[in-house]
Amino acid sequence: MLSVLVKVMRMVVVMSVALTVAGAAYAQSLQEVMKQRGLSEKDLLAAAKTFNPSGKKDEYLVFSSGGQSGQVIVYGVPSMRILKYIAVFTPEPWQGYGYGEVESMKILEEGKIDGREIRWGDTHHPALSETNGDYDGKYLFINDKANPRIAVIDLSTFETKQIVVNPIFKSEHGGTFVTPNTDYVLEAAQYPAPYGKEYVSLDEYQQKYRGGVTYWKFDRNALMSLTSKALRRLKKKGVPTKGLKALMNQEFHGEAAFLAAVSEKLGAGGLKEHKKNILKYASKQGRLLPEKSFTVEMPPYMQDISDVGKGISEGWSFTNSVNTELYIGGFGKGNTKWKHRLANEAGMSSKDTDYMHIVNWKAAEKLFKAGKFTKFNGHAVLSMKDMVAANALFLLPEAKSPHGADVSPDGRYIIVSGKLDTHTTVYDFKKIKALVDNKDFAGKDPWGIPILDMKKSMHTQVNVGLGPLHTQYDKEKGVVYTSLYVDSMVVRWDYLKGKVLNKIPIHYNIGHLVTAEGDTVDPDGKYLIALNKLAIDRFSPVGPLHPQNHQLIDITAGRPMQLLYDMPLPLGEPHYVQMIKADKLKPLIRFSKKDFEHYVRAGNERVERNGNKVTIYATAIRSHFSPEVIEVKVGDEITWHITNVERAQDQVHGFAVDNYNVHGSIEPGETATFKFVADKEGVYPFYCTEFCSALHLEMTGYFLVKP
Amino acid sequence: MLSVLVKVMRMVVVMSVALTVAGAAYAQSLQEVMKQRGLSEKDLLAAAKTFNPSGKKDEYLVFSSGGQSGQVIVYGVPSMRILKYIAVFTPEPWQGYGYGEVESMKILEEGKIDGREIRWGDTHHPALSETNGDYDGKYLFINDKANPRIAVIDLSTFETKQIVVNPIFKSEHGGTFVTPNTDYVLEAAQYPAPYGKEYVSLDEYQQKYRGGVTYWKFDRNALMSLTSKALRRLKKKGVPTKGLKALMNQEFHGEAAFLAAVSEKLGAGGLKEHKKNILKYASKQGRLLPEKSFTVEMPPYMQDISDVGKGISEGWSFTNSVNTELYIGGFGKGNTKWKHRLANEAGMSSKDTDYMHIVNWKAAEKLFKAGKFTKFNGHAVLSMKDMVAANALFLLPEAKSPHGADVSPDGRYIIVSGKLDTHTTVYDFKKIKALVDNKDFAGKDPWGIPILDMKKSMHTQVNVGLGPLHTQYDKEKGVVYTSLYVDSMVVRWDYLKGKVLNKIPIHYNIGHLVTAEGDTVDPDGKYLIALNKLAIDRFSPVGPLHPQNHQLIDITAGRPMQLLYDMPLPLGEPHYVQMIKADKLKPLIRFSKKDFEHYVRAGNERVERNGNKVTIYATAIRSHFSPEVIEVKVGDEITWHITNVERAQDQVHGFAVDNYNVHGSIEPGETATFKFVADKEGVYPFYCTEFCSALHLEMTGYFLVKP
Repeated sequence: MLSVLVKVMRMVVVMSVALTVAGAAYAQSLQEVMKQRGLSEKDLLAAAKTFNPSGKKDEYLVFSSGGQSGQVIVYGVPSMRILKYIAVFTPEPWQGYGYGEVESMKILEEGKIDGREIRWGDTHHPALSETNGDYDGKYLFINDKANPRIAVIDLSTFETKQIVVNPIFKSEHGGTFVTPNTDYVLEAAQYPAPYGKEYVSLDEYQQKYRGGVTYWKFDRNALMSLTSKALRRLKKKGVPTKGLKALMNQEFHGEAAFLAAVSEKLGAGGLKEHKKNILKYASKQGRLLPEKSFTVEMPPYMQDISDVGKGISEGWSFTNSVNTELYIGGFGKGNTKWKHRLANEAGMSSKDTDYMHIVNWKAAEKLFKAGKFTKFNGHAVLSMKDMVAANALFLLPEAKSPHGADVSPDGRYIIVSGKLDTHTTVYDFKKIKALVDNKDFAGKDPWGIPILDMKKSMHTQVNVGLGPLHTQYDKEKGVVYTSLYVDSMVVRWDYLKGKVLNKIPIHYNIGHLVTAEGDTVDPDGKYLIALNKLAIDRFSPVGPLHPQNHQLIDITAGRPMQLLYDMPLPLGEPHYVQMIKADKLKPLIRFSKKDFEHYVRAGNERVERNGNKVTIYATAIRSHFSPEVIEVKVGDEITWHITNVERAQDQVHGFAVDNYNVHGSIEPGETATFKFVADKEGVYPFYCTEFCSALHLEMTGYFLVKP
Repeated sequence: MLSVLVKVMRMVVVMSVALTVAGAAYAQSLQEVMKQRGLSEKDLLAAAKTFNPSGKKDEYLVFSSGGQSGQVIVYGVPSMRILKYIAVFTPEPWQGYGYGEVESMKILEEGKIDGREIRWGDTHHPALSETNGDYDGKYLFINDKANPRIAVIDLSTFETKQIVVNPIFKSEHGGTFVTPNTDYVLEAAQYPAPYGKEYVSLDEYQQKYRGGVTYWKFDRNALMSLTSKALRRLKKKGVPTKGLKALMNQEFHGEAAFLAAVSEKLGAGGLKEHKKNILKYASKQGRLLPEKSFTVEMPPYMQDISDVGKGISEGWSFTNSVNTELYIGGFGKGNTKWKHRLANEAGMSSKDTDYMHIVNWKAAEKLFKAGKFTKFNGHAVLSMKDMVAANALFLLPEAKSPHGADVSPDGRYIIVSGKLDTHTTVYDFKKIKALVDNKDFAGKDPWGIPILDMKKSMHTQVNVGLGPLHTQYDKEKGVVYTSLYVDSMVVRWDYLKGKVLNKIPIHYNIGHLVTAEGDTVDPDGKYLIALNKLAIDRFSPVGPLHPQNHQLIDITAGRPMQLLYDMPLPLGEPHYVQMIKADKLKPLIRFSKKDFEHYVRAGNERVERNGNKVTIYATAIRSHFSPEVIEVKVGDEITWHITNVERAQDQVHGFAVDNYNVHGSIEPGETATFKFVADKEGVYPFYCTEFCSALHLEMTGYFLVKP
């Protein structure tokens, strides 16, 4: 009876759409298309939930690590269309990142390790800047596991602005995670190593190898980059910096407020006189400050993913670990030493539990400010001994080989899954805090760190399925989602009531997962994305190296979860992503003159020679460069400033000097500067690489190098 | 009345879907979702035509240039999901391309120009290999405009296998285009320059600057890489190469046929004895052969896009040009010389017509084989004089600043659009051939090249709209689609009847366009993609640098064109793309042992030292490396062979040595080799960078460098 009714209805669907689309001189039925393409009504519903007609914007933006691509990926939800790859650790020519353009070369140079150029990264965990525990859409942080570094991306331009190298780690994983007001960005080590650069035998693993968690100070106030170096330079220019130093720890909202405070220190006259110099530094907002950052020493366990407390747990951070067995591999023929029977994967997971590291980072900050640290390679390290003495470092057993440590929106609960245990543990920070305050410890580890009792710290433990990894929170109180790697499923469960609600299969082998703003104080629910490690048969084959598969799932309250969309990731293996309401982002459309020291006005183009230093002041506009012909001599050092004097949105000009490995992307209003040595005689065309008008092909010139 | 009926029908749509999706314990109506998301019935139809439920494969694959990213982009149609970025000219760590892995480093090294590392490219025109004028799905070619180079991508692995540098050009644009059986790959110069490396003043532009078209010999038969070098090496090994040389110009289909021919030359015994050596070279199929390639000298016009004849025009090629005015820029203050009044864009487009260069490439090939060439930088150049004498080079006026020269499926017509002329010209090769045969010329250019009469060569001329650029063919005889850059439209018209059929607006400023197999002898019609240069307001803002916008359009015969989907391109500015039936591609799932000289069997892992040369033979499998601990001395030269012994599809292992800028992607069955010098004392973890199992984090080891 139902099926008959459905048949009838289907016919009517046909007519309905035929009639409405029939505004045109033809009719084509939805049903025809569905039949032809083998779509069910459920598929059609999913299509309707994810399809964006031309011009329709997405509700959320996702910031995804690019894994071994070294970049960050930005895509829209629910359309699951990739909007941008942001170049971070890997040079990328389309964006003009690392191909002779001074600003980006400088940032990549910051990423050198012991003078070695590292031109890739293994990005894992992006972190959006937060205000009061909620995304504010201003900055994005991303880590590099292979070469311990942190990058800062400015979301007004979607460009990388800073790379800092961890001075003491040789590896990391548990980064980046921010404190609720982005005062600090966390970076936890992964594979232990000596803090120094020297060789140390594995025989001394327990004595000399160390882990740790670095707390990078992030300063978003207007004076952030008045670092001692900048201050020295201001001093040289005659700016009385004493007064300014005093302002360094104050928060300023906007340039006006900042300038008012400065004029208070210097007097209106002093401000007027030095405004330019002060703003030159003050305008460089939003950087990590190595000299104000510190690391908490940890045992040579392999620290892993962290999360940061908020609400009642604000001031604390939580970092998982693996290999508390302190096992050193050595398996396999060909080892030059350490011939153990077991491979690392077995030896490092022989115990039932590992340790969560619990740090009172506000207490650690006090120790740092009190000067209670030792410097390694110029970086401040707080010893385990001092941290323990300050009641600021504890260990808490957790199911072995854990992945996520995910703090609840109110900060009270921490959910941890051990991927070799089907039980996920819900810790209660109130209980943890009580044990800490009462010094109620279950023992100490070999390094004297107090160990809390697992049962006493727990709210509950739930059997969620095979291979649980990470957890994200829903808007609905108590509801969470945990990825099940081995089961290839997402489980929806209630961590307060301690019961499983339902599950949905994914394709295949899910790692992280994300819900809309699901790790903030105020999750939205609505959408969940399963970040799957394997695609296998989901997409048209493209060779032995497959794309990843991000699956969008509708988690609207009151309905079973519905799989909506399979999205292939064409470049890199994302690990974690964050999903932010799109309207929180207010990026620039064009740059403004005052952003650039060397802005070239139309009509003011020129070439200046000073010895063998040639400086070109050029402009670009549809569709010509000015000047168009440059003649120099072999060996000349070229500095080429080019201002894109366009105002129109999206009217970008590219710049390439043929055969010189020089390329730039110059966005509307931007002035880009290129430096290179004209080391080879010859005739080198230069041209605009962005198709900019009907006469784009003619936007060219000659760079001539005379013997 | 209709609208009322529609209202009724809509209600029924609601019910219909509600009922059918209601298999679940809940009902959600399609209409609700449409209302909530503001979708019209027409939007829903577009959604149904483009949505792929989980696991559904795409009907077509698109191979797109990545523009200034230097890569190639692969995406599916109709879902418009990006499946892969193939690393070509730019190092890319996720694929392990250019980060210490020997094979890929070798390919990037091939791309050096005068010893300079060029680590990016400006890719423009991909060309799929053809058999009898139809895509065969075996190889893909792509050019680099900024640093004149051609790359070969093997579609069995979707990996770049070769980069060749054009020995005489300083710039190019009109590549790549293949002859109907992929005997040659065309590469036309763009900005004229001397063939040599020396400086030549622009005062000698007409005397010493030259353009040209290079015809790269591509050899897909089994003996292709028995180059003279390989032959010399075979000779050393005692293989009688005389007999083999004779086979070099024969075609072989498959190894068996080839081996039969070899044994005929060497005798069964000789074959048996030398089989390994012969196959070692013979197996390297599908490469460009510089020593068998040549360039046709052209005047210093700026040659542009080409196309190759087929059917009745087989043996001929057609190359557009701009700036037949021979104008040299010099506009703008700051020019070091050549202070002209006009910018290039104006000076280079002051005449009404430019020239199409018509080449009889089979006649050119004869001249080359007869040794009638001069070598520049080791590369054979056929002079204009010899080409004219051989009746192999002609000029044909075309509307100024043309873009595409697009040959019809039967080879009879060539459609050319000048982007500053609203008229698109349809040339008739029969008429051209008659003029050529009768030596019926309208004159000669300053270099003595015969000029054909435009009117006498024409079939018709059609006013299609503002800023016409490129044309693609439909399955339906006579129907073509031309991109209108200035109008931001695609026009569908009939080039045989010479009339416009209809138009569709796009968003915004379309460059190239493509139809399904639309430049082959057998177009499919069905889908058209508009490759738009500007996105402006189509997507959520991501900063001053916007994505591109590829718009999918339904061009099913008998219906008006329907815009289906807006696809953002997140990285690079594609120029041209080709769309091939997905089932023509048969890529590998895993590599096989015999592909690798240094395949390491499980149980056979070892470390060998020879002086300061350390060779590591390692395996990778879920989830450990063997060996796991390697100790070497500072200064040791490391060669690290790693075999991924997995057989399971998509079970990739990554390999990183921390802080050494070394990264690889090792696909199932692959053996990758990494070479680097252990130049810094210290403790360096290495690990698997592809999340491969629940114990992936434990897939690590230590690389220790002693002082």
